[in-house]
Amino acid sequence: MLYTFFNYKEVELFERKIDSEVPDVIKYFDISVVIDVLRATSTIITALSNGATCVIPVSDIAQALSLKYYNPGYLLGGERGGQKIEGFDLGNSPFEYDEKTVKEKTVILTTTNGTSSILSASRIAQKVLLASFLNLSSVVNMLSGYDAYTNIAIICAGNNGEASYEDIQVAGAIIFGIVRKRSHRLSDSSIIALKLWESLKRPDFSGEHAHRLRELGFEKDLEFCQMIDHFRLIAKFENGKIVKIG
Amino acid sequence: MLYTFFNYKEVELFERKIDSEVPDVIKYFDISVVIDVLRATSTIITALSNGATCVIPVSDIAQALSLKYYNPGYLLGGERGGQKIEGFDLGNSPFEYDEKTVKEKTVILTTTNGTSSILSASRIAQKVLLASFLNLSSVVNMLSGYDAYTNIAIICAGNNGEASYEDIQVAGAIIFGIVRKRSHRLSDSSIIALKLWESLKRPDFSGEHAHRLRELGFEKDLEFCQMIDHFRLIAKFENGKIVKIG
Repeated sequence: MLYTFFNYKEVELFERKIDSEVPDVIKYFDISVVIDVLRATSTIITALSNGATCVIPVSDIAQALSLKYYNPGYLLGGERGGQKIEGFDLGNSPFEYDEKTVKEKTVILTTTNGTSSILSASRIAQKVLLASFLNLSSVVNMLSGYDAYTNIAIICAGNNGEASYEDIQVAGAIIFGIVRKRSHRLSDSSIIALKLWESLKRPDFSGEHAHRLRELGFEKDLEFCQMIDHFRLIAKFENGKIVKIG
Repeated sequence: MLYTFFNYKEVELFERKIDSEVPDVIKYFDISVVIDVLRATSTIITALSNGATCVIPVSDIAQALSLKYYNPGYLLGGERGGQKIEGFDLGNSPFEYDEKTVKEKTVILTTTNGTSSILSASRIAQKVLLASFLNLSSVVNMLSGYDAYTNIAIICAGNNGEASYEDIQVAGAIIFGIVRKRSHRLSDSSIIALKLWESLKRPDFSGEHAHRLRELGFEKDLEFCQMIDHFRLIAKFENGKIVKIG
């Protein structure tokens, strides 16, 4: 069955709920797929594609700085309010994670919503994948390999607890891809995401967060993050690190 | 601005968030509109339309029973898991709330998601309205009377913390009606609801809760709750009671 969660706080609620009410068998999902298309997952996919060894997602700035302190060779990246954090090497724009900068480097990353969502996702599923428009077909192809009894949670990072219009589009595009190949039961949120994508058929970055990024001068990031299948890459989060599969 | 919340738990989260982070001026919304189309708000609209004096929503069964104990003339209605609660006068089917049964009666109602959502809604807005497909145009007409600076929260009761496909449709239909008459800024969730409705254009009761109600034999309830504008009626929640306006 395919579940979709519109923001990561909902996942935490769900986690609490299933702790008490739902049998152990579905306490954890087989797979969770995290989406924060503007811009954390798009940036991470880009970094890995450009040769970064791994990306370490952390929730807060202090933790990121402490990790950098003990590992001065790591790159320190992240944003708050869309903007690069003071003293950090990099912000959260995919363009900063080019091959020259990230090749064979470990990146520490902390963002407002995305990195926390990845950590949340790992608490409800053993296998955690990252998705964006940039690697859409790779994710769809991998998920389509699982049978209809696999419980998949698609986690949309959202925007400070609010559903993000763009993230739901990526969720819908993934579901659209999967159900074309194999019938899966869909939760209500998954149906909503699917219907939304079927009506749009292409990325529509006109939500609040996209608006804010435009105001901050990140128009090029928006164009880039809309490029469906720009990369062929699967990224998984395992043992605290996000790495390329294969 | 139009906000949409996909389940009432999100509203509670939001309430906590705005307590600490947001200036007092937008701490509360001007209006909140509660939707639990299957079936609480549809049933309440029907009861009021059939002459019930008022409906008192309560969260839990013990509270409902206690209210009945002190007011034996009140009708006691509600459901858990879609089914009538043992010892109650009525369940949660609109057909049980016919004129013969409810005229000039006060109804106590407790349902799994809807009645709690109404109580939550009253904590974030002074004016609380109830919506369903049955009274869609009445709600749209009333909301269209407010200017574009009015902060409206549309609260979809959902299904045990999950977004409900049907409730988001009603939200989308309301937003569709409002923005045709006046431009309003829309939150991301509101855009999602609007796009969903624009792609459907008619009620599609194919989500999980509708499926469950079908299994329980409530097929006729589903047909009834899809009847757009069957009633011309505005219901508001005020001082603990839901009453007809005007």
